[in-house]
Parts: sequence; structure tokens; C-alpha cells
Amino acid sequence: MPRQIVTFGEVLLRLTTPKHERFVQARQFDVIYGGAECNVAVALAQWGIGAHHVTAVPDNDMGQACLAYIRQFGVDTSLSQKRPGRQGLYYLETGASVRASKVVYDRARSSFSELQPGIFNWREIFQGKSWFHFTGISAAVSDGAAAVCQEAAAAAQAQGLTVTCDLNYRSALWQPERAREVMRPLMKNVDFLLGGRDDADKMLGVTLPPTSGVSGLDYKSTGELALKLRDEFNFSKVALTMRAGDSADENEVSAVCFDGVKVINGRRIQLKGMVDRVGGGDAFAAGMIFGNLQGWDSEKTLEFAVASGAIKHTVHGDFQIASVAEVEALAAGGGGGRVQR
Amino acid sequence: MPRQIVTFGEVLLRLTTPKHERFVQARQFDVIYGGAECNVAVALAQWGIGAHHVTAVPDNDMGQACLAYIRQFGVDTSLSQKRPGRQGLYYLETGASVRASKVVYDRARSSFSELQPGIFNWREIFQGKSWFHFTGISAAVSDGAAAVCQEAAAAAQAQGLTVTCDLNYRSALWQPERAREVMRPLMKNVDFLLGGRDDADKMLGVTLPPTSGVSGLDYKSTGELALKLRDEFNFSKVALTMRAGDSADENEVSAVCFDGVKVINGRRIQLKGMVDRVGGGDAFAAGMIFGNLQGWDSEKTLEFAVASGAIKHTVHGDFQIASVAEVEALAAGGGGGRVQR
Amino acid sequence: MPRQIVTFGEVLLRLTTPKHERFVQARQFDVIYGGAECNVAVALAQWGIGAHHVTAVPDNDMGQACLAYIRQFGVDTSLSQKRPGRQGLYYLETGASVRASKVVYDRARSSFSELQPGIFNWREIFQGKSWFHFTGISAAVSDGAAAVCQEAAAAAQAQGLTVTCDLNYRSALWQPERAREVMRPLMKNVDFLLGGRDDADKMLGVTLPPTSGVSGLDYKSTGELALKLRDEFNFSKVALTMRAGDSADENEVSAVCFDGVKVINGRRIQLKGMVDRVGGGDAFAAGMIFGNLQGWDSEKTLEFAVASGAIKHTVHGDFQIASVAEVEALAAGGGGGRVQR
Amino acid sequence: MPRQIVTFGEVLLRLTTPKHERFVQARQFDVIYGGAECNVAVALAQWGIGAHHVTAVPDNDMGQACLAYIRQFGVDTSLSQKRPGRQGLYYLETGASVRASKVVYDRARSSFSELQPGIFNWREIFQGKSWFHFTGISAAVSDGAAAVCQEAAAAAQAQGLTVTCDLNYRSALWQPERAREVMRPLMKNVDFLLGGRDDADKMLGVTLPPTSGVSGLDYKSTGELALKLRDEFNFSKVALTMRAGDSADENEVSAVCFDGVKVINGRRIQLKGMVDRVGGGDAFAAGMIFGNLQGWDSEKTLEFAVASGAIKHTVHGDFQIASVAEVEALAAGGGGGRVQR
Amino acid sequence: MPRQIVTFGEVLLRLTTPKHERFVQARQFDVIYGGAECNVAVALAQWGIGAHHVTAVPDNDMGQACLAYIRQFGVDTSLSQKRPGRQGLYYLETGASVRASKVVYDRARSSFSELQPGIFNWREIFQGKSWFHFTGISAAVSDGAAAVCQEAAAAAQAQGLTVTCDLNYRSALWQPERAREVMRPLMKNVDFLLGGRDDADKMLGVTLPPTSGVSGLDYKSTGELALKLRDEFNFSKVALTMRAGDSADENEVSAVCFDGVKVINGRRIQLKGMVDRVGGGDAFAAGMIFGNLQGWDSEKTLEFAVASGAIKHTVHGDFQIASVAEVEALAAGGGGGRVQR
Amino acid sequence: MPRQIVTFGEVLLRLTTPKHERFVQARQFDVIYGGAECNVAVALAQWGIGAHHVTAVPDNDMGQACLAYIRQFGVDTSLSQKRPGRQGLYYLETGASVRASKVVYDRARSSFSELQPGIFNWREIFQGKSWFHFTGISAAVSDGAAAVCQEAAAAAQAQGLTVTCDLNYRSALWQPERAREVMRPLMKNVDFLLGGRDDADKMLGVTLPPTSGVSGLDYKSTGELALKLRDEFNFSKVALTMRAGDSADENEVSAVCFDGVKVINGRRIQLKGMVDRVGGGDAFAAGMIFGNLQGWDSEKTLEFAVASGAIKHTVHGDFQIASVAEVEALAAGGGGGRVQR
Repeated sequence: MPRQIVTFGEVLLRLTTPKHERFVQARQFDVIYGGAECNVAVALAQWGIGAHHVTAVPDNDMGQACLAYIRQFGVDTSLSQKRPGRQGLYYLETGASVRASKVVYDRARSSFSELQPGIFNWREIFQGKSWFHFTGISAAVSDGAAAVCQEAAAAAQAQGLTVTCDLNYRSALWQPERAREVMRPLMKNVDFLLGGRDDADKMLGVTLPPTSGVSGLDYKSTGELALKLRDEFNFSKVALTMRAGDSADENEVSAVCFDGVKVINGRRIQLKGMVDRVGGGDAFAAGMIFGNLQGWDSEKTLEFAVASGAIKHTVHGDFQIASVAEVEALAAGGGGGRVQR
Repeated sequence: MPRQIVTFGEVLLRLTTPKHERFVQARQFDVIYGGAECNVAVALAQWGIGAHHVTAVPDNDMGQACLAYIRQFGVDTSLSQKRPGRQGLYYLETGASVRASKVVYDRARSSFSELQPGIFNWREIFQGKSWFHFTGISAAVSDGAAAVCQEAAAAAQAQGLTVTCDLNYRSALWQPERAREVMRPLMKNVDFLLGGRDDADKMLGVTLPPTSGVSGLDYKSTGELALKLRDEFNFSKVALTMRAGDSADENEVSAVCFDGVKVINGRRIQLKGMVDRVGGGDAFAAGMIFGNLQGWDSEKTLEFAVASGAIKHTVHGDFQIASVAEVEALAAGGGGGRVQR
Repeated sequence: MPRQIVTFGEVLLRLTTPKHERFVQARQFDVIYGGAECNVAVALAQWGIGAHHVTAVPDNDMGQACLAYIRQFGVDTSLSQKRPGRQGLYYLETGASVRASKVVYDRARSSFSELQPGIFNWREIFQGKSWFHFTGISAAVSDGAAAVCQEAAAAAQAQGLTVTCDLNYRSALWQPERAREVMRPLMKNVDFLLGGRDDADKMLGVTLPPTSGVSGLDYKSTGELALKLRDEFNFSKVALTMRAGDSADENEVSAVCFDGVKVINGRRIQLKGMVDRVGGGDAFAAGMIFGNLQGWDSEKTLEFAVASGAIKHTVHGDFQIASVAEVEALAAGGGGGRVQR
Repeated sequence: MPRQIVTFGEVLLRLTTPKHERFVQARQFDVIYGGAECNVAVALAQWGIGAHHVTAVPDNDMGQACLAYIRQFGVDTSLSQKRPGRQGLYYLETGASVRASKVVYDRARSSFSELQPGIFNWREIFQGKSWFHFTGISAAVSDGAAAVCQEAAAAAQAQGLTVTCDLNYRSALWQPERAREVMRPLMKNVDFLLGGRDDADKMLGVTLPPTSGVSGLDYKSTGELALKLRDEFNFSKVALTMRAGDSADENEVSAVCFDGVKVINGRRIQLKGMVDRVGGGDAFAAGMIFGNLQGWDSEKTLEFAVASGAIKHTVHGDFQIASVAEVEALAAGGGGGRVQR
Repeated sequence: MPRQIVTFGEVLLRLTTPKHERFVQARQFDVIYGGAECNVAVALAQWGIGAHHVTAVPDNDMGQACLAYIRQFGVDTSLSQKRPGRQGLYYLETGASVRASKVVYDRARSSFSELQPGIFNWREIFQGKSWFHFTGISAAVSDGAAAVCQEAAAAAQAQGLTVTCDLNYRSALWQPERAREVMRPLMKNVDFLLGGRDDADKMLGVTLPPTSGVSGLDYKSTGELALKLRDEFNFSKVALTMRAGDSADENEVSAVCFDGVKVINGRRIQLKGMVDRVGGGDAFAAGMIFGNLQGWDSEKTLEFAVASGAIKHTVHGDFQIASVAEVEALAAGGGGGRVQR
Repeated sequence: MPRQIVTFGEVLLRLTTPKHERFVQARQFDVIYGGAECNVAVALAQWGIGAHHVTAVPDNDMGQACLAYIRQFGVDTSLSQKRPGRQGLYYLETGASVRASKVVYDRARSSFSELQPGIFNWREIFQGKSWFHFTGISAAVSDGAAAVCQEAAAAAQAQGLTVTCDLNYRSALWQPERAREVMRPLMKNVDFLLGGRDDADKMLGVTLPPTSGVSGLDYKSTGELALKLRDEFNFSKVALTMRAGDSADENEVSAVCFDGVKVINGRRIQLKGMVDRVGGGDAFAAGMIFGNLQGWDSEKTLEFAVASGAIKHTVHGDFQIASVAEVEALAAGGGGGRVQR
């Protein structure tokens, strides 16, 4: 079995209006928990990789419910801590057709945002692990959390783990100027960069080369962007996702990857009748990490990751809970056209 | 702030089968309240216009629940009356794909249908208001209700309010011959006519000019129809909606408007994955009234109204509860493609 | 009124994850009952044909609930028996977009699968009936059930009933080799064969002629297949369904029919936003039987059957519960584009 | 098997607020169908008695759903008719603790209330049947319906059926004075009277003898009332139910019976944590009829009927759907204290 | 009509686990809004008193949903403000039997808690009003909110309004020592004190006289406490609630009142099968205010208030939404024993 | 931390009718998983004891969902195996008042029932563990499973673990005669016997001494039974539960314990408004094991166990998920009378 992964980030309570209701209509919220980094851990655990998620939850019933929720998917939560503060959360109004989905964040004063360096013993945590994954959201949550990202990434690299970072720009948390200030220094401990192609400028100040035309899935400019990022930050690998479509129900997704040697393009996958878009990028990141841990070649890895990201859109919640076989079937061109009996 | 609006019409209890169930399958009904005129009041109240809805509900728990329901959206119901009779209602079976949605009306003997002239003191009601809106449904419900429409429209015009009427032909309530008898005389108190383009013939006996071809969105003939209506009834303005598509989930919508000087065409908006079609025309009407109250130019008003009607299709229930900013974003060409974080 | 029909087959409890949830997420299952043959009986009963379903259910509360369920749709269950064994069931995970629906069967040791010849008095059962319908699923469930199929089909033919068989290959129940061993001898008592065009090879060893190209709806090769089947088994009629599309939400469906004289092609119907695919083939079969019982010509019968199969996709559960008028409207080219008020 | 029963009465759509919600809070209604007479038919059908319910439903989807609903419990609806008018309904707010349950009737202009003599062919309907049951509600609904009750009861008696009537006073439908005018003449065709002990005065003008004290379950005065009723109307049998308790969740129930010879008292049954009180009296009536059809002695019949009425309170909806064995177990003194595994 | 009331306090989003689930089990939360002061306004608005609630909500969708929620019950929210900060909330796990209900508060940094004096123009707000009501919770939320309570109470008294304060000790917000520091000075602007009898010591440092024995409903000591409170703070009136019982489903409630002249005792009401305990004290307070506004005598007022508090326990949510007639019926000794048809 | 526990037994899918519905009414089932032995593991894991559950689940999506379900509560499932066979299940109809809850088992041919000795490596499994717990249900499921119980209990004892067995007679699985044949030999590897007092005769042939009277909670005879069991099988400890009450909603529970030296009696706890009775005995067993692992004295242990069993009745599902603090509070006499804020 490949060695184990560690992820670090906040797990939020997500309160979703059911049945496409608007906030003002809702008399119930669907309850799940998720977070960009934890979503990666869940996907990998589903696929048989030992996955530890490190986070801070409040020392009350909500924090306990949060940990129980992610534990059911096989993620080890024993390295997380119960801390002062509140349970971070967000409200999600599921869009439909020409009405976009809407998120209202409510994470001020959360236990995670109150973190400071020195709380986690990263040396022990990384003992015997091979991979560390975090995202730009953790750095955006608070100065303390950003410092812990720095602390963790440095420790991970020092202990020989591969370090991945997914950019994940969130305008509700910070503005590009501040984001660049925080994120650029963090990049020196990152081996492999992941991100949406539109986030590179906002988070790192690396601008997208001119696109060839109108389509959202512009492989050429996105591939050039990957090379620019490599050039500036000396990443060993870069993978960038692309998305097109202006409906809440339909999108087209793909990605490009610089694998250390060359830029390769993923297949484009058409998504109609999407169920839940949150976590698509995380499922892509999990796919990239999984392929690398399995030792797959770059093409197979990228197709798997694109399919993983795509299939996430068909499942409620933040988590990618499709099996390796299901993702591979989609990567191989299969769709949902027949009932699997 | 613009001066206030008054709407008049029945508010029905709507019993909808959940999850696309057919009537024979349903073990629960979703409960909302709505009505063509009240829907307009709700939209305007959401957008900051003082809106009063005048109606009659039964003097029992159902009538009280009905008023409470619409009050939550900021509509003033203090001018409505509790009266003898029953709560009018309709059953709605939500269609899917090639199966159309189905309505079974049950409004006989409702408190509203038992109305007679003299019950409402229109003089007082219209004091300090600027706009009166009613629809052909109120006139169709019963002879008494039609007479009250006449009474109200005349009083409104006499007191200097702008009077709008939305045609809203309902074949379950009357046949074209009777509809024309009742509606044509009512038009002399109407300043601004709204309607679906197919209703003009059934309700007013004004036939659609020959269409240029197969498409449902025939701007040319619809524009000519607007002018014919103006010619015959001397309306200051006419706005007509168009709809195309033969699936319960997908439609294309638009509208044309004669603004007193010229005919202008709205943008066409593609709707896939619609959630609820009821109230789309009312949301359009509310948009037209809002633009006029705001003093916007005809083009801006029409685009706002078309977008308002379109976005309604993405929300459960009769009510348009999108904000001005959300409608404007769609009017400006935005779609639902990205999560709003 | 046309004379009555008898169907024979297992009725399964179906446990469906709601709201497109995956099995691991489900905290509730939707509960319905259905089965390929019983689905045909329900459709015909809805359309006014006296329909008897013969099955075996366990002699406990679950068996009673099963019979009550189908009785509400007007099917006569008085010829069924309460027997030892358990209630057969299956779990259904409803797919979405690129994720296929998934079935986990759990029918081992069911009361139906424990059946043996001699339990039902077919002579009495078929008294005064005109049509007997069964499917390949019943033959696949167990050797005992296959023998009862043989017993019933022979008795039906001897008593002058028309015998229809729908192939319905289920890979979870048997492999093609065994299927052919069992099914081929059964064909000598079958007058009219129904089936998906891909099942003919697996169930009867009759291979599909070369297709003309990529499209799933290849009328030509499917028509040739119908003739090959007639040639080999001497069926009086053959009807074969076709399906194309690789999304869980969208499909195109049609069928061809050899009516004893000629091969005719059905209209193709586009299905977007499908609600539930299970039972589409059964609804088609019911349509074919209904047209024959009504004495309609082949073209009308086929169009009705194709529309019946199509409209089933818009309804939850296994059952076709659209009225004759609704099916005819779709067969005539109507869609779901307007609310039926 | 005992010969078959015929019941006659309106079947109402019942819209219940779930989870003890008040009307103003409800965003869903639970949907069931029921009616005092049909409830009796369902109980008897569950217990193996052939039961036909005669009613009128509207000729639309709601009427069809109504008949399908009761058919699932094995009641034969083929003698009912689809007629003009609307589906009668009532709203039910489920009480709790010190808050009483609340019913809002909405049955004006229902298909049943528009009935007139001559519509049903009672001679054919009663062919081969042994028992006819109706209640005072049918007589209260409208003059037409009262006349049909008269027509049916007379025909039944003429054809040798036993005729039972359950008083069922409903203050929302009529006042005592009018009730007595209508009901007293009807009694000459009634063999066996059933009712709540408080209804005898309101419906027939027969006053309750002085009670011995405060308790609601006064066997003595109720037994005397039974004899007074027999004396005045010459009934062959009289059974009267009693209820005590002032909480929506807890009641004590019992009954007395004059069996033609003597007055006997039923066991008192304590009900805590009641689920649904509607239909308790109907379940009692069904129990009395069942015992008589089975030829049980008076004591066994009364205990069975009291237990049947009691167990109804533990089930949602109007229908008594406990088995004979379950009712007998309660009649024998068993309770709900152990899980039945 | 009596003159209007103003209430001031935070409105919290309440997230309740449905069906008695524990937090760790919940996959949905029921959504309502409420708050001790707003609950009083809702009850009074239901009863026909003009009621204004003054609060601060965040300037986002959640704040808007909050105001819409309370507006449906007829409370005027136009004096409230949209302010920076988050929507305060609490999680409620509904207990059962020997398991207590559990609240997890999450109101740090809420818009209300960030309030400071000078934000509301109390002079204008109190124009033409007759009554001002606040509770100790508002004072506990933050120093700023406590200062605004002071500001408002002083202004109200200066403008001649009656000022009521309900003690409402909340141990999650502060400790008795700090509570007394803040609350005691506030009392000089309070005319009429309300509270649970156990809160007087924690909030004001006034200890309960020795109780006569074990029972929770000790009228004597509670009456003496009322007099002690009057003596120390010179209140014109004091009303104190009592509660007994150690089950989550059953309680006994009552109250005593010093009406300026004498101490009177309320009837004790037994509550079994309680639905929701939150808001019982607020419903009592509303009853006391209502009786005073109506000019009822002290006895009638107290019985009405006790019944109002009791009936609240039978309804989901924080709000008392029983009508005056329903409360009076319970006050007169009626219970929930009969269905109200 | 105390050393870890191992439990062994089947985990069943439980399909519960919601809202007290009967099977024939249910259109949804609530989905949970549980099993007598696994329930013990969950309780202990909640309380901080390392708990491993050993079972066999089918190698499909249902088996995976089953393991995920119990993993969320912190139980280690890595020693369980995916095996051929089906997912065992049971249907549960929740009773109310005088109607008992009803279970329909469906566990024939489950993966667990197909187990045989040699499949689990008990030596490795018990490495470093201190306690092994199984119940009579595992022995009843099949001969193979009984043999595995024997194999495991012997291995556990050989490796020095404490072995507990809970009798758990299930009449649906076997009759007393066969039960005694299988269970009596198993007792020689059991240190500590747990059980309901009525199971001792059925499972072990040890009859209850004459009871002192009518009450179900007869401490004296139950204590004597404990001593008889110790005498015959040489158990180091024996704990027997008692239950009284004949309503589905109300029970009184307690237990006695022979602690090796003396017999002690637990407090009796009154349960009204019970939510779910399944798993009460398992929660008691978990409490006894927990007290022993903590080294508590017999009295403290028994009171904790009785309270643990009692509080289970207030929670949906099989699992005891109250915290140590919550159980201790109830053991100390606290109830559910106050909201915990």
C-alpha cells in the first residue's frame, strides 16, 4: 500500500437549503460537513489510502458531530484537536438554471481560525507519512492559520513529504493583494501546485496568457500558464482546472497538467443535470495525488483526476465518494446511460 | 421612494405534489399560497416598493394562514377582508420531461368568488397610491368578482392611478366568448396592458398577425399584435410575453413592448432545468411595473422584466423572490454558471 | 371491454435512495414495489383492462404490504399466493449526469424463487382470459420459477390465450449461456416476442446484424433482427426497443415492430430530465399489448407503445400510470411544454 | 365466508399538518383519504369480509386518487361513480397535550353532496349482500344526500339486509334541531344503532339519563340510554361508545351494548401517547359488525369492538388497519409493552 | 385598540434536530427564528396588538430571512436595522423522556452583540407607543447591548411608556456576579418585573425565601419573593413563573403575581406530551402584558398568562401562536381532549 | 486508558417505518444499521474505550455502507471481512400506545450467517485486547456462526481476555430446546453473564424462582436467579435486567447484579415517552463492561449501566450515544426536566 497522506484545513458545517429553495423559503437545512482539504482526505481514504485530517473543532457537541461525520468515510481524525472557539459554517443556497448557487460564509471566530503556530506537533504528525496537502483557504482564514500552514509545509518538506497546495481563491475571505502577500512566500515549500486557472493571478500574481477565443476551456493559454507558474516558483508539477458554462445545472470541465517534463491536456467532460458543484476541485486534486501515489503515468493520472472531479458534481455534499472503478469507467469514456444491474 | 402599489385578486392555497410525483402517488402536498396579482405585489415588496394586496379570505384558520404567508414577504394585507366562503385552492402536479405539469382548480364558492361591489372602499384604499394592478383571472372567477374589478379599475383611474391589467386567460374558468364579453369593457379603465401573446385573441378578440415561421418566439408578429391592441383600446403601453419549448424542464422566454412610441424586443433567455413555471408571467409584469416606477427607459425596463420572469422559473412557488441585483445580473447576461461565494 | 390479461412474475420491494444520494449517504429509502410483469398489469389496469397478477409473496406483513401496493392501481391480486420464503427486494441508487444508476439485487430465497410447478392451478387461472404475459426475469430467478413459466405458458397456449414474453436479460441473475438453455425452449409457447434489441443475443443466441454506424437508434439492423427472430422461432409478432444516450438524465428511445407482415419503425422520442428509468420497457410492452387488445393497426399500436415507454421515464417508481389520453397526446407529438390548466 | 357488506358515504381528502404543526406553520400537508363509512369498509376488508364502498367522486385526478387510495386496502370501489362537483376535503391540525386537534371542513359543493335519489341502482348494488352501513354524516351533508340515505336504507331493508347507522353528530354540518328532523324518520329502516353516547340527544332527541358522577365513562347512564333508544325506535341492537380525558394525547375509552336481550359493558382501555384519534368510532362500529357477521356472542363482539376502536388511536389516518389477531390480543388484555420479534 | 408595544432583543436562527435526533445523528436541521423579546411581540401581534420589534440583523440573506420569518406573524420590523456582523444562532437538540433538551449557543460577533448606544433613535421609535419590553438576555449578550438596553429603558420611561423586563438568566452568557452588576442598575427604569423564580437570585441577588417542602410549585415562597423584589426595587408589579417535573415530556407550570396591591396565585397546569419548551416564559410575559393592555383584572390576567405559557409548550418553535380564544379556553379549564370540529 | 474490547456479531440493516406508520402505510423507511454486539462497541467507543467490531458483510455497496455507518461512531472495523452472501436486515414497525412494535427479520443467507470456523484469525485479533463480548444472537443465527462463537470465546479465554455473553433470546431464530443445546456448552468460556431475566430459562434452562407478586420489577426473585446461574455455570459475575409496563411508550426498567460476592439492586427508572426501545439491553451491557474496565465499584457500575440502558430508550436507532457525563447525571437521579443551556 502507498504510504499515508496528511491534510490540514478547516471542516465547516454546511447548511444547504433543500430542493433548490432560497434562503428565505427554507424551513429545513440539509446538514453535512466538509472542507477543501478534508474533502481530499475522504476521497483518498475511499480509494484505500491511509488519510489523516488535521483540524481544530470546538470542544462541544457540534465539534464532535463534525469529526464523526468525516470518520464514517474512513478518515483518521485522531490527530485533530478540540479547541476553544465556535464551529465554522456556511450556508449554501442551491441554484438552478439561470440562478447561481449562493454561499454565505460564517467562519469568524471558529476554532480553526484561532489556531496559532505551536499547537500541532508536526514532527510527530508527519512521522511515516509521504504526502502533505493544504489549500489557500487555510491561509486565508486568519493570520494564525496562515502561520500554521507555513509551519506545517516547512516541516513536511523538511521531513521529505511531497507538499501539494491547491490555490482555492475565496473572495469572501481576502482580496488578491493580501492573498498574494501571504501565498507567494508559502510557495517555496510547495512541490506540486494545483488550482483553478483563474486563481493563479489572484493568489500568486501570475497572469493568464491571452486566450485564443471565447471558449472557457482554452487548453493553450492554460498550458502556458502552467509553465509560467513552474518558471516563477520552480514547482515540480502544476495542474490547472478549467470550467465553462453559464447554467447552474450544466458545465463542461477539464484540466491541463505540467508533469515536470511536458504539458498534457485532459479530456473534456460534459456535465448536464449536475447535483452539487462544491468539492469538484478537491476531487480533482485527490485524483492527481492518487495517480502520483499509485505511480501512474501523467496521462492516466490526469484523466483519472478530471473524471474524479467530474463525477463529484453528481453527488450531494462536498465529498467525492465514487470508487476507483467508477472513476476509471468515466475516465475511459463511460457515462451514466445505462442502469448498472 | 416611489409611491405605493395596490393589487387585487384571489390568493389560492396551492397543493403541489413533491418530487415530481403524480397525484395518485402523493402522500404529501407542499403548501404555498399565491395568486397572479399577489405575486406581483410580493415581487415589488421585495424590491422596496410599498405594496398592498386586497383580497378576501375565509374567516378561519386557513384564511389566516394565507395572509400570514404573503405578509412574510413584506406585502401589506391590512386592506384585505375576512369574509364568508371557503379558501380557494388548486392542486399542482409538477411535470417532468415530456410530461406536462397539471393543474386541478378548486375555487368554487371561495370567499373571493363571492365578492360583490360595495364591499371594499376603493376610495380609501387608493388614497396616496400610484398604481393599481389586476388580472383577467379576477374577472373570470365570478360575475361578482368581475364587477369588483370594474369598480376598482374605474375608481383607480378616477383617482389618478396608473392601471395595469395582465390578461391571464384560464380555460378552466371561462371560454373565449364569455371572456371577451367581460374583458373588453374593462379595458377602457386600463392604461397599460400586459399579457401572453396567445391570450389577446381569447380575452379581447384581437387576433395574432401571421407568424413568420415555426419558432415560438416570433418578435415580428408579436410586435404587430401590440400595435393592434394599442390601436383598438388606446392603451398607453402594451407588453406581451412569448414562450417556446415543448419540455416541462426547458423553455425559451422573451417579450416585446410597445412603450407608447415604439416597439422594442427583449433578449431571449434559455431556461434549462426549470424548477417551477407558475408565476413567470407575474414576475414579468412586476418587472415592467418596477421599471416604470423607477423611471427607467423602456429598454432597461423590458430587459429587467424579461429577466425577472425568467429567474422566477428557478424558484419553487408562485413568488418572484430574487433581488433587484440578481435580476439585473441576469438581464446583463449573467447566468448561473458559478457559485456566488 | 376486451377480455382480461394475466401476468406472472415476482414483485420486489424496491428501496431507492432519495434525492440522488449514494448508498453510503442514505438515511432513508423510498419504498415502492414493482416487477417487470406486474408493471405491465398495472399499466393495463390503469387503461381499463382487467388485469390479474399472479405471484407469490411471503406470509407476513411485508407480503401483505406488497399486494396492497399493487392493488391500489386496480390490479386483481386474488390469484396470488402467500408462501414460505422472504420478500425479494432490490436497492436502487439513482444516478445523475455521468453517474449511472445502480441496482443491488437481494432476491435469494424469496417466496417467488422457491416456487415449483403444481402450485398454481393455471387451468382455473386462465379461465375466461385472453392474454398471458411473462418475462425472462421469472425464468432467471430459479429453476423452479423457470419450470413454472414453462408450465404456465404451455397451459395458456393450450387454452387459446395469446402469450407474450419480454426478454429482459439480467446479468445479475444468470449468464448468457445458461439463459439461452432456459429461454430457447420456452419460445415455442410464445406468440409475440418483446425485448430490448441487445437482449436477443444474450437470451436467445440470435445475433444483431451489423449496424449501419454509431447511433444507438439503428432502425435498420434492429428491423433485420426482428425478422431473424421470427424466422428462427416462428413468432407471430416481434417488437424490439432501442435506447441511446450516455447520461443518467437524457436518453433517446424508440422501437421497431414486425407485425406479422412488415417491419415498422416508431418515432424517436427525446427524453431530457428523466425522473426514473426503471419500467420503461414494461410500459412499452403494456402499450403493445393494449394496442393489440384494442384492435388498433400496427402503426398506431407502435407509436402508442413507444410513447408509453417514454412517458414512464417521467414518473417515480416502476409503474406506468399515465392515462390513455396522456400517452396518445405524447404519441401525437405533444410534449410537456405547457402547464395543463 | 360471511356474506358481503355495503357502505355508503363521502370519502374526503384529509390534509393533516405534520409533526403537530399549526396551520399557519405548515409547509406540507400529509395526504390521506377517509370517511366514516368507508373507514368501516376498510376495517372489514382487512379482516376478510368482502366490502363495497359506494360513493361519488369528481371525475378528475383527485377523484381517481381517492378511489385508488381506498382500493389498496382491499375495498371494492367498482360500484362508486365519478360525478360532477369537487373533491370534498378537510384540514386537520393535530393537537398535542392541552391543545386540541382542530378540523376545518371544506366539503361544500362536493360530488357527494350533490347526489340525488335515482343515481345509484340500489337493487343491483344490494344483490347478494348481507349488511348495509351508513352514518349520520351522509345525511348531514346535503338534502340530496339525506334523501339518498333514505332511499338506500329502505331498499336495503326491503332486500333483507341488516342496516346499521352510526350517529356521528357533526356540529359544522348542522344543528341539533335540523339533525333530529332528518334523522328520526331514517331510524325506521335501521336495525342496529351505533353512536357516541353524547350524540343521541343531538341527533335523535333522546336525552342522556342523569349520570352517577363526574367520570366520563358512566356505564350506568349509558346503558339506560341504550334502552331508551331501543324503546323509542325499536332497534334490535344498540351500541354506544364512551370517552374520557382532557388531553390530546391521553384518553380512556369503552362502550356499552344492548344486544337485544341485555345491556353489557365493555372493558375500559387506557390510551396514552395516542397517534391519531380520527376514525376511532368507525373502528368500533366495524368491530361490532364483524362480531355479528362472525356469529360471536355479545360479550366477545363488544370486547373486540372496543379493542378495535382503541387500537385505531395508535395509527395515522382514518383507517383501522390492525389484523383480527392484533385486535384480539388487545381485547384479551395485551398491550404494547414488548417488541414483537 | 390599545396602543402599541415595542420589544428589543436579538433574533436567533434556531437549528433544531428533527424527530428527537441527537446532534451527531442529524442530517437535517429544522429552521426557525426566535428570541425572547421577539417572541413576546409575535404573541401580542397575534392577539391584535400593534407590535414593533427592534433588532439588528446582518446585511445579508440570512438577516433578510430572519426578518421575513417574524414578519409573517404580523410583527412590524421596519424599525430594525441591517448591520455588520453575523447572524446569531443556536443549535437545539430536542430531548425525550429522561434525556434533557440541549442548547449550544453560537452568538459571538452577531450583529446584535456588536450594537452600541446611539445607533437607534429611541425617541422616534417610542413615539406614540405605550409599552417597552426587554429581557436580561439582551443585557447579557455584550457590554454594548447592555448599554443599549439602558439607553432604551431610560428613554422609554422618560416618554411615559410602561417598561417590562423579563429576567431570563442564561448561564452560557454570563455568571451571576456579572449579571447582578449589569442588571441591578437597569431595574430603576423597569416598572414591571417578570421572571422565573430561580432567576431572581442569579440576576438580582434577591434570594428565594425558604420553601415549604419538596414540590417545585411552591406558591408561598414564590409570593414572598415577589414582595422582596418589590421592596428592593420598587416595582409596580412582579410576576414569577414556576415549573416542576423532571421529564423532557412532562411538566407542571404555574405563576404568582404581585399586582401592586396583593399577591395572587395562578392555576397549576399539567403538561404531558410537550412538543417544544422554548418560549414558554415569553408566552407568559406576553399574556401578562396583554391582560394589562386590555385592562383586565389581576386574576384574569394571571390565568390568561399561565395558560398562554402552558399552551406554548404544545407548539413547535419559539412563538406563541394560539389565539386569544384558545388561551382563554385553556385558562377556563378546557383541555385537549376532544377534536374541535 | 483501559485496554481494548472486541465484539463479534452480525450488523443488520434496519428499515424502520417513520412516524409510527404501519408497514402497509410506509412509503419511506428510515435507514440505520445495528446489532446487539456492535451496539456495545459503539457505546464503549463513545466513552473512550478502543473498540473493535468483528463481523462479515457482503462485498457490495450495502456492506460498505454498513461498515461506514458504525465507523462514524469511532468503532474500528478493520478486523471485519467482506464475504459472500447478502446483507442481513430487519424491518421495524414502531408501535404506539397499546400497539406493540413489530419486527420482521430477514437474515437468511446473510454473509454473517454463512460464517464458518477458521475464517477469522482470533489469535491475532485478540492480541493486546482485554475483553471479548458476544451474545446469544450470534449463536442463533446459524450453526456456522455458533461454531465461530465457540471458537472465539475459547480463544479469548485462552489469551486471558474477560469474556461476556448477553443471552438475548430471539424466538424468531430458534426455540428454547435448541437454544439450550447450543448455549449451555458455550457458557464454560464465559466469565460474566448478562441477560434479561426472562431469557435465562429459554436459553440456559435455569428457571426463575417464584416471584413475590405481580410487579415486573421483582428484585428478589431476579437476585435469586442470578445466584442460581452462578451456581450452575460458575460465572464470576451475573447481571440481569428487568422491565415492566404494557405500553409501547412507557416502561420501568432496572437490573440486579451478582458481583462475585453479593447481589445488589439497581435504581428503578421510569421511562415515559420512549423514542426507541431497541438496544436498551446492549446499552446496559456496555455500561456494565465500562464500569468494570474503569475499576468502579459494583454499585456505581450497576447504576451507570441501568442509566445507560434507560437513556438509550430516548434515542432513535440501536446505538447508545449519550456521553459518560450524561449517563452519570441520570444515574445520579437527574432527569430531562430542564433545557440544558
